[in-house]
Amino acid sequence: MTIVLGDADLDRVPVMRLALEAIEAAMVARAGGSLIAPARHTVGFPGHGDMTFTIGGSIGSGGVAGFRVYERFAGPVHRQLIAVWATDSARLEGLVVGERLGNIRTGAIGGVAIRHMSAPDASIVGLVGTGTQARTQLAAAAAVRTLEDVRVFSRDAAKCARFAREMTHELDLPIRAVASARAAVDGADIVLCATISTTPVIELAWLKPGVHINTVASKTVGVHEVGVDIAEGADLIATDSPEQTRAYGKPFFLAGTAANDRMADLAAIVTGKLPGRQSGTAMSLFCSQGLAGTEVFVAARVLAAFRSAGLAPIGVDAD
Amino acid sequence: MTIVLGDADLDRVPVMRLALEAIEAAMVARAGGSLIAPARHTVGFPGHGDMTFTIGGSIGSGGVAGFRVYERFAGPVHRQLIAVWATDSARLEGLVVGERLGNIRTGAIGGVAIRHMSAPDASIVGLVGTGTQARTQLAAAAAVRTLEDVRVFSRDAAKCARFAREMTHELDLPIRAVASARAAVDGADIVLCATISTTPVIELAWLKPGVHINTVASKTVGVHEVGVDIAEGADLIATDSPEQTRAYGKPFFLAGTAANDRMADLAAIVTGKLPGRQSGTAMSLFCSQGLAGTEVFVAARVLAAFRSAGLAPIGVDAD
Repeated sequence: MTIVLGDADLDRVPVMRLALEAIEAAMVARAGGSLIAPARHTVGFPGHGDMTFTIGGSIGSGGVAGFRVYERFAGPVHRQLIAVWATDSARLEGLVVGERLGNIRTGAIGGVAIRHMSAPDASIVGLVGTGTQARTQLAAAAAVRTLEDVRVFSRDAAKCARFAREMTHELDLPIRAVASARAAVDGADIVLCATISTTPVIELAWLKPGVHINTVASKTVGVHEVGVDIAEGADLIATDSPEQTRAYGKPFFLAGTAANDRMADLAAIVTGKLPGRQSGTAMSLFCSQGLAGTEVFVAARVLAAFRSAGLAPIGVDAD
Repeated sequence: MTIVLGDADLDRVPVMRLALEAIEAAMVARAGGSLIAPARHTVGFPGHGDMTFTIGGSIGSGGVAGFRVYERFAGPVHRQLIAVWATDSARLEGLVVGERLGNIRTGAIGGVAIRHMSAPDASIVGLVGTGTQARTQLAAAAAVRTLEDVRVFSRDAAKCARFAREMTHELDLPIRAVASARAAVDGADIVLCATISTTPVIELAWLKPGVHINTVASKTVGVHEVGVDIAEGADLIATDSPEQTRAYGKPFFLAGTAANDRMADLAAIVTGKLPGRQSGTAMSLFCSQGLAGTEVFVAARVLAAFRSAGLAPIGVDAD
């Protein structure tokens, strides 16, 4: 039976926990050379937009293969599609239609970075940004660390207040809207930047020793929400896809810097091939790229959870 | 509402008629420069197989965008996936899961070639091959010409007899299994070759004046079911994708021949930009390549038929 899931189905399984497991497994596959994650493939439809495919999976026993596709056409509603096949049996395991799984995947990548790079007792989060990525980054942080205080800032105070209210309810955590990015990150053990800003939203001087930072937004020269000085100042810097940092049309914001040369592959840290955090005062920075193939791992876990629980999907809901 | 169709749903609409309309529309779009049909994109999963994407659609008002994906992994059941978005609204129109639509599409391309290249009064079909492609080529021929006699040959006599019985029932036509390829094509107005043979299955001397031939199988140097002499002898030769004839790993079987130089684009014949059949005794040959993007056109028509009829899909059936 090919399972077809929609966005509403993702609330019926512990989706962030499954996604974190999937990303850990993808990192292990990557470190072992069994992850398939070629560069994205985009086809243009001149005058309308384009379609981008991230195709990937894993080889070896129990491998999965599939893709995520998203379009950039003009319209009020967008629907991504993720499909998963089992490479052992050629079985189409299922489809996931909607916008949520891709975002949860990006959150889970951030969560795996926090798990393996931040201080084990990190409990205070400073969050800059209140969009979809901010939500999933925070949910992932809450899943891997015992949080006691979360401060969130965005330039839109009303949106910030709503975010704090909604995420307090969703995560059962005290989340406070604060009046500045500085107030958000002051004393924070974990700083999450998930904005649409083209210029740095935090300053090195605001950060406490031992902080870990995730940056999710664009990271090209002249367009980055975290400054080069923070990267240069970090004792540990990593990304989930060094290849992708070299595959943009514009150079990566750290291209040509010493920080770039010592940037680690998160998969190497996850699997212990490279050391992670060395001290309680070390500063660490994770540059999230959205490693190709990871969507397929996450979708495969979610589909397997539906299958093993015998859950009947709600499926693709009405527009 | 995103519609998800499975193979069984395709019997609930006049699928070959819709497919022929879709291919005609795709040919018009192609001739007008609004068809998007880049080369196929394949990603390997070493030790398991690979996945191939044909991505395409059309630009302009009412345009569609999407793809077909199929895998080559080892397994008893294979499930292709076709997805269609509207470029005007970004709406995901729907998904078609299964093996049938791709084959129906290839049949319909053959049908459009027959409609525009064969004699208008062609009524006798000689068919070599009894596989899936043979079925859809014959169904398409029956949809565009008034057939009176169909003869089918394959090396497996039992399979051939079963094919004749099943297709007689399906198409409500007299279909006879015959003992040789020569008996099948002798006197035929339309010859359909849809085999897995690597060497020619018909001879030029067997063909009657005015015959039209469709060849569906591999067409690379040293691996082709129709001989170069037949191509050289044809008065009119066409393909649905000249680009694809140049995109194989191995050269096209007519590469370097005079026949190749005068091979027309079927879209140009369909739209009257190039002349088609010039006389009742002209021999014509269509080399089917499976123009990229056409699956999206066919799926879009089928999905629209479901939508406009308010049909509830059966969906993806159980393995």
